Amino acid sequence: MPKRRALSVALIGTKFMGRAHSNAWRQAPRFFDLPADIRMAAICGRDRAGTSRAAKILGWEKAVIDWKAIIADPLIDIVDICTPNDSHAEIAIAAARAGKAILCEKPLARNVAEARRMVDAVKRARVANMVCHNYRRVPTVALAKQMIDSGKIGHRIYHFRARYAQDWIADENFPLVWRLQSKVAGSGALGDIGAHIIDLARFLVGEIAVVSAVSETFVKRRLTKNRQPARVDVDDAVSVIGKFRNAAILNLEATRFARGRKNQLTFEINGSRGSLAFDLEEMNRLRFYDSADPNQTRGFRDIIVTESKHPYVGNWWPPGHIIGYEHSFVHTVADFVKAIVARKKIEPDFTDGLKTQRVLDAIQRARPLSSL
Amino acid sequence: MPKRRALSVALIGTKFMGRAHSNAWRQAPRFFDLPADIRMAAICGRDRAGTSRAAKILGWEKAVIDWKAIIADPLIDIVDICTPNDSHAEIAIAAARAGKAILCEKPLARNVAEARRMVDAVKRARVANMVCHNYRRVPTVALAKQMIDSGKIGHRIYHFRARYAQDWIADENFPLVWRLQSKVAGSGALGDIGAHIIDLARFLVGEIAVVSAVSETFVKRRLTKNRQPARVDVDDAVSVIGKFRNAAILNLEATRFARGRKNQLTFEINGSRGSLAFDLEEMNRLRFYDSADPNQTRGFRDIIVTESKHPYVGNWWPPGHIIGYEHSFVHTVADFVKAIVARKKIEPDFTDGLKTQRVLDAIQRARPLSSL
Amino acid sequence: MPKRRALSVALIGTKFMGRAHSNAWRQAPRFFDLPADIRMAAICGRDRAGTSRAAKILGWEKAVIDWKAIIADPLIDIVDICTPNDSHAEIAIAAARAGKAILCEKPLARNVAEARRMVDAVKRARVANMVCHNYRRVPTVALAKQMIDSGKIGHRIYHFRARYAQDWIADENFPLVWRLQSKVAGSGALGDIGAHIIDLARFLVGEIAVVSAVSETFVKRRLTKNRQPARVDVDDAVSVIGKFRNAAILNLEATRFARGRKNQLTFEINGSRGSLAFDLEEMNRLRFYDSADPNQTRGFRDIIVTESKHPYVGNWWPPGHIIGYEHSFVHTVADFVKAIVARKKIEPDFTDGLKTQRVLDAIQRARPLSSL
Amino acid sequence: MPKRRALSVALIGTKFMGRAHSNAWRQAPRFFDLPADIRMAAICGRDRAGTSRAAKILGWEKAVIDWKAIIADPLIDIVDICTPNDSHAEIAIAAARAGKAILCEKPLARNVAEARRMVDAVKRARVANMVCHNYRRVPTVALAKQMIDSGKIGHRIYHFRARYAQDWIADENFPLVWRLQSKVAGSGALGDIGAHIIDLARFLVGEIAVVSAVSETFVKRRLTKNRQPARVDVDDAVSVIGKFRNAAILNLEATRFARGRKNQLTFEINGSRGSLAFDLEEMNRLRFYDSADPNQTRGFRDIIVTESKHPYVGNWWPPGHIIGYEHSFVHTVADFVKAIVARKKIEPDFTDGLKTQRVLDAIQRARPLSSL
Repeated sequence: MPKRRALSVALIGTKFMGRAHSNAWRQAPRFFDLPADIRMAAICGRDRAGTSRAAKILGWEKAVIDWKAIIADPLIDIVDICTPNDSHAEIAIAAARAGKAILCEKPLARNVAEARRMVDAVKRARVANMVCHNYRRVPTVALAKQMIDSGKIGHRIYHFRARYAQDWIADENFPLVWRLQSKVAGSGALGDIGAHIIDLARFLVGEIAVVSAVSETFVKRRLTKNRQPARVDVDDAVSVIGKFRNAAILNLEATRFARGRKNQLTFEINGSRGSLAFDLEEMNRLRFYDSADPNQTRGFRDIIVTESKHPYVGNWWPPGHIIGYEHSFVHTVADFVKAIVARKKIEPDFTDGLKTQRVLDAIQRARPLSSL
Repeated sequence: MPKRRALSVALIGTKFMGRAHSNAWRQAPRFFDLPADIRMAAICGRDRAGTSRAAKILGWEKAVIDWKAIIADPLIDIVDICTPNDSHAEIAIAAARAGKAILCEKPLARNVAEARRMVDAVKRARVANMVCHNYRRVPTVALAKQMIDSGKIGHRIYHFRARYAQDWIADENFPLVWRLQSKVAGSGALGDIGAHIIDLARFLVGEIAVVSAVSETFVKRRLTKNRQPARVDVDDAVSVIGKFRNAAILNLEATRFARGRKNQLTFEINGSRGSLAFDLEEMNRLRFYDSADPNQTRGFRDIIVTESKHPYVGNWWPPGHIIGYEHSFVHTVADFVKAIVARKKIEPDFTDGLKTQRVLDAIQRARPLSSL
Repeated sequence: MPKRRALSVALIGTKFMGRAHSNAWRQAPRFFDLPADIRMAAICGRDRAGTSRAAKILGWEKAVIDWKAIIADPLIDIVDICTPNDSHAEIAIAAARAGKAILCEKPLARNVAEARRMVDAVKRARVANMVCHNYRRVPTVALAKQMIDSGKIGHRIYHFRARYAQDWIADENFPLVWRLQSKVAGSGALGDIGAHIIDLARFLVGEIAVVSAVSETFVKRRLTKNRQPARVDVDDAVSVIGKFRNAAILNLEATRFARGRKNQLTFEINGSRGSLAFDLEEMNRLRFYDSADPNQTRGFRDIIVTESKHPYVGNWWPPGHIIGYEHSFVHTVADFVKAIVARKKIEPDFTDGLKTQRVLDAIQRARPLSSL
Repeated sequence: MPKRRALSVALIGTKFMGRAHSNAWRQAPRFFDLPADIRMAAICGRDRAGTSRAAKILGWEKAVIDWKAIIADPLIDIVDICTPNDSHAEIAIAAARAGKAILCEKPLARNVAEARRMVDAVKRARVANMVCHNYRRVPTVALAKQMIDSGKIGHRIYHFRARYAQDWIADENFPLVWRLQSKVAGSGALGDIGAHIIDLARFLVGEIAVVSAVSETFVKRRLTKNRQPARVDVDDAVSVIGKFRNAAILNLEATRFARGRKNQLTFEINGSRGSLAFDLEEMNRLRFYDSADPNQTRGFRDIIVTESKHPYVGNWWPPGHIIGYEHSFVHTVADFVKAIVARKKIEPDFTDGLKTQRVLDAIQRARPLSSL
């Protein structure tokens, strides 16, 4: 019997995404039949104590505080980048040069120029690469994709509208964290959560041709964590219209100022035959309207996406037993591992990340609107 | 005891809106304490047999087939215009000159020029005038307005987004009715249903400063009712972004191509303190989030707007007994009658209709979008 | 041309039900093609001033204060009984003897003995008779019945569960109105709202074979309207289990002590193939699950019951334009008029009322429960 | 520094519950600050190959096929029983005698006699003991308990109604698995899923005083897995009414014949001030109605139970990021470990299991219902 392959993973980043990815690497082999064993080899953070604690709690073999040591370690197969946006390019390019497979948190970069350099690096190095747009692998979203591809809502798509709404900075006294600083984050709600729905638009409908946008910074000054007043130089909210290449109309909103919406990513797609609707806060349900149903009994179906025939979710629990947010990361790393071993292309890769970045940039330089 | 005043109404139009307005004039005195009696004096249509039948079924004293006879009749106090859009201006201006109070279906006109002439006419004649944006008087919408005005969602509004979605022409074989012809309707989904949500935007948040828009005619050729092929020269759907004068972000969509959405007018408003959400297909409910609620028990409240303290609805049935679509027209005519007798301004009047028309026109001439 | 028949109606009762029935008689000819004209001839109440006012506001030709004058009037064809329960039997029996068609509010009587005398009277007199269980004619409920009859949820029914929940007396300071007095009302929540869901159980599933019940009077003493302390001698809530003759399991609850439930009548029916669910507070929607749908896209359909093919509702407005509570009474009187003219049996008639009363009585004399 | 304690766990059972509990033991230390390390020492199943595979996939150090070896192993601290119901008593009593802490799947036993022997055994041995009614530790349910205890719905409870509905055996061709055999399972839907809602009734409201019940076996004959025809001798569904000692009315249903309901555990509780409603298929949400809210803005609040202040859930992800079914088991073992180390009583323990068993038995011997 040939020895089963093992892949060693190093994770860079110990905060929210670090925790979510750690869980994914730990859980994936328990619920999915992976073609390789996973070794959770190292986690890398900025301070020694915190990183050591994270390693122990999150289940990594060792703690590292210099990411370059990760890159230099020949035993590491996969580098998983969960740092703030301003370090994605540098780390990813170094990892590519070192021949590592790379999973990178979204948005891929702060701008098109950075993203293009990253794509060049992974192409030149021919390394496996993936952007962690985890929502593609929420079972409900994956089912929506299957249904669209098989014509369930018809052969033409008319509308894609999505909204990603949160309210965690609606309080004016919330401090100026890195996600509110242009030089670290690139943009505000746009790159952080807008990137997710742009990725879903591209995944579910296709490439975007034209856009127009309006954005606003509602709270223009905040205190830093050290209580210093500072200007907020990213968008608090952005609203976008546009067209896909296939003539479908695009409507997107990303905001952190929607009181009561905690992590609400909703989309609705209307096709020539039917419609689909999704809400991340009820992420185990897909609404589906089929105009081919009998007239008297037509209506949006509330599909509880927990059946064994549904993507991913049959690996978890019996029908009706719902899964949560973090499972989408488990599915992401499971698919990434399979793609690495099979040497197959995986989506969304860095090229997808670049295309999404082009949309982000186009939104940021959108022309002024017409005055009344 | 002074003799109680009676107001004689003449309705022009016998189709969908004619039926809805007839019901309103008939029901208003039964449920609201009006300061005048209502005489349903005449209904006017184009063919004699149909109009006579309508008069009998809908409860009008006589049937008339020349609207000019209505205008010329000195006994008529109120002219209610429910005709296609291309005759609004001519009838309304004639009615104003004859000193009639005027209730006119929306959109007020086909374009700003027409609307301006209508405003001039009613101002010159000093006649009571109202545009029938009936949704302002859905109790839930009226409650939303009260709550916004009293600061329930805070002193700043950040977002207003609304969508009016239908699917009655999503079938490519649906014929080319007047609502799909530019010369009669002025525009497509925009003027027909988009006008309603623009009116609500202005009602609930304030005047709009800038807009950008994208529209599409998905089915470009249809058969007329006589089975002749013809070009569709109005929009099937439009998507709009913009800003209000108070810096709030506007996002609007109007479409007749959303499979499964029958008459779904939804809006959500996010303020500095809370949020409101509405869906016309569940029109007796208002969702309200108050960030001032205790942390542990915060959540969108599902207010069933049927309490005696809620606007209008206490005049109908006990709490929990819901009302329907047509009741909004009853409230509209009840308020119009009160305003006429009290000689008070009523909203939305023709000036409001003109302002809404300016937004419609700005959307139609919106600049091209930025290509990627 | 033969002269069209006219039917003269007299309504006894001027309160909540009097208003709802008045509206029904007024609206039915406007929306339904009736085989006779309706003359709203007389309304009868207890005090002269209030009844005169009611006649004017509600649209009746004259006001009467002695119901026996109604019975004695040979010009009256239909007597509509909207009085408290303790006078149903006396009035209905007198009306039957006088040859009137009778529409009687529910519950038919205070007990089986009374109900039986009423049935005997209408049978002997061979007069048209109907109990106003208006919820049978909510379009959604009528659609549910059609679907069950055509096998949409399968040939066996396993479960019928219904709950009618209100909260209008949950406040301990609410006074002792007639609905809280046994000698007038017969029972409390049971007869008032429980009767409706028993009628629906019989309508949708069939006759009930056995029952067990538990009830409670949570607030045992209240003040009368004259501020005198008095004992509450009816149930505040009742919970019932049982079996239908076809072996389906029955589960019913009626309560006026469910905070937040204003007029919530819900039911769910599970059959061998599918399920149906209904909520009166969202009365234009029927949830339908069909296990024969494809595995991947199965889910409860949210049918908006406003299509032209749906029962009754096509007579009102286009799809998606919802109707309200009072429309169920319009449908009831429209069907009653058609049955009278066609000399056909109508359901639910007094015999149905008696059968429902037998269930009410069986619930009231249910055996004590097993102690643990 | 004192050496940190480690607790060695052995799990008996490798199927659905075995997988859920394995996940719980694996995840608990990653998300909760436990006072001891967890060693996943052994998993025990019936066949060697399957158990070895389970050990590897689920993360247990070794595979065992004789549960008595587990009991005999002095290094095992905790025995976690996930076997079919007929072996609970034997294993638990042996484990107690061996001084192990015991976590036992529900229902505790097949009947009161068995349950009593188990209670006696753990009391005599003074070992930590817990029944795995995991739904008590769904954050939403735990929040409901906190709110009830702090008077949020008032000082009196009027109604508790719950329903646990599934449809996995609604298909007549589904085979006769152990859960459909009385000698293994004790009862059908009653003990399997009814036990959960009886536990929740006791947890949230208090002890039950009297009950009445009706049950049915809708499909009386099924094929065994070996295709042999056999009689089904457990209930397919049961419907229960009763009273709590505090006079609140109880209404429960458990069924496996509700088409479209996959794992729907719903409850609603009505108190003198407010109401709570829950649905396991939307388990991150709690509906809360507070009659003390202002009249105009009262309505059921839709609380998304993902805030840091909510029980358990703050240990997972930021607000709005929902968790799933299996997390309730993680919370259960985390609390059990804390109780073991702190030598504190934990609920629900075997005494609770016995009390629940008394209710199950009372339901099974309920008196016949009254015939009509």
